[in-house]
Parts: sequence; structure tokens; C-alpha cells
Amino acid sequence: MTSDVIVVRIYIHEKEHGRRTTLQQEILNLLHDQQRVQGVTVFRGIAGFGASGTVHAADLLRLTVDLPIVIEFYDKPEVAQAAMKLLHGLVPDGHVVHWRASCSDLSQDQPSE
Amino acid sequence: MTSDVIVVRIYIHEKEHGRRTTLQQEILNLLHDQQRVQGVTVFRGIAGFGASGTVHAADLLRLTVDLPIVIEFYDKPEVAQAAMKLLHGLVPDGHVVHWRASCSDLSQDQPSE
Amino acid sequence: MTSDVIVVRIYIHEKEHGRRTTLQQEILNLLHDQQRVQGVTVFRGIAGFGASGTVHAADLLRLTVDLPIVIEFYDKPEVAQAAMKLLHGLVPDGHVVHWRASCSDLSQDQPSE
Repeated sequence: MTSDVIVVRIYIHEKEHGRRTTLQQEILNLLHDQQRVQGVTVFRGIAGFGASGTVHAADLLRLTVDLPIVIEFYDKPEVAQAAMKLLHGLVPDGHVVHWRASCSDLSQDQPSE
Repeated sequence: MTSDVIVVRIYIHEKEHGRRTTLQQEILNLLHDQQRVQGVTVFRGIAGFGASGTVHAADLLRLTVDLPIVIEFYDKPEVAQAAMKLLHGLVPDGHVVHWRASCSDLSQDQPSE
Repeated sequence: MTSDVIVVRIYIHEKEHGRRTTLQQEILNLLHDQQRVQGVTVFRGIAGFGASGTVHAADLLRLTVDLPIVIEFYDKPEVAQAAMKLLHGLVPDGHVVHWRASCSDLSQDQPSE
């Protein structure tokens, strides 16, 4: 038994600013408080570059570097779509990627985390 | 030349228990010993929350925190499906996500890792 | 408004050699200089194993261990395809996985990173 889900990945940087605090924190707050979704995970990359071409790389002085952050979640299509609508305006265009996937059954007991 | 594969991502936590040892270790053992799959990679997130809504975040006291873990693998559809069947019962419902993808040719020499 | 993109993930190891330097560096150089793509992020796994079955795991002696690296990017299909062509020959067969996804609109202003 599987359910259809949408997997969403949001690509930002550690030091990117939101409206009031870091963009990372504002996205997590939104996904946690306004449109609760399942399975949000935040990853920190060790290097990366974006449209501007700047290269960010972790090294011994990591704390001074602005590393890439990926915030990933998945949920039923209607929930994921609603979350993406809320993200629009907060996250710059071109930084939210999503695709269809299947999930071991979501509709039974919610997994106790 | 590309082959069809299924990408599987399993979302758990560092301290989640399996039957005998950590769930992470039991999943890796299963994927390594019982249904060998290609390209298993384990990632540790720096923060996350699940259906229960608890927020896990890495900080200076990281060792005391239960961070999210993602175990990812991909293989030919029949191999990935067989592995997911074995995972059923071990991993809670709703925590295994998979989708179809293409892979640079798997059918020639197995890549020497 | 969303655009079609291809998400590409390349699975290698920290210590894997390219022609002149590390494979990781050569892939990043190629994606940065020869076929500029959007949103390249490099992740380091904490454990993994490949076709050879060797298990790599991070521990207190991490610097001596050859951990898995995933280099991920996404871009418009024609750009991603061109990049994958260039990667062919550099990255061993079976280590490049890609799939179709949708992206919050790429065609407007390029996101300033």
C-alpha cells in the first residue's frame, strides 16, 4: 500500500535573510505552524554555488562561510501544494523544486516520530 | 544509455530503535546482507520535525540531540521493490518514499566503487 | 508558475580521483566553468556502501575515512542534459541519477544567490 506524495526541496543558504529572522527559520516556522507537513528535514551542504556563480565551501573556518541549506519535506499532494503556495513570496523564484513520488502508506496511523 | 531505477529515501532518526540495535544499523544490515542494493548513502540532517511535531536541531550540544537520518539508495526497479518489501515492518509506515528515475547505464560493468 | 527541470544527483566518494585532482573538484569545475548550471549543492554522507560492498562510516577518526559525496544540481532539461553529456566519461557508469521535476519559475529573474 502506497500513497501519492509530493517531495519538495527548497534550496537556500545558511545566512540568507527572511523578513524578520533567517530564511531557514522562517520556512521552518511556516511549515511547522501554518501548514503542518510531514517529514521536514534540513540538510547542510559542504559546498555549492548558485546562479550568481559564487562558490561556497566548508573548510576549517566553516563558521565564516555561507553554506547551502536544503529544506526537504513530503506530504499528500494537496498539503504539499498548500505549503508551496505559502512559500511563494518568501523563497526566491527558482529555488523550490518538487516532484511526485510514492510513500509507504500515509493514510493509516500517522507514524509516531 | 540510461537504465530505469527507483530511488528510495527512508526517513528516520539517529536514536530510533530497531529490534536489536539502532534502526539505522538494522536497515543498513538488511540492505547490505539480505537485499544488496547499489549506492546506499546515509545523510544526517541538521534539524527536522516529524508527524509528532517535535523539532530536532543540531547545536553545540549535538550529541544529546536526536537528529534526522535519511538512508537513500537506488537500484533497478525489481531490486528496489524487493528491498522495500523487506523494509516493510521494520520502518514505520509513511517513512519510506520512492520514485522512478534514470541512471547512467547500470547494465554494463558494475561501477567499481 | 513552474518550469520543467531535471534534477541530477551524482554519487561519488571524497577520495575518488579524477584525471588531475579529486573527482569532486573536477565535477564542480565542469558544472561551474563548462556548463554552468543552477543550484549545485554538495552533500557529505555519514556512511554508505557501493557496488563493491565496502562500508564507509564516519566516526571519531573521520579524516581517515572515504565518505560518500553527493553532488546535486537541477536546471532546464536541455541544460541538465548537456551537463550530463559532459559528465559522461568523467563519472563511472551507474553513478549519475536523474529525474524530471518542477521548479518555481526559473524563467523570470534569475534568483540572486
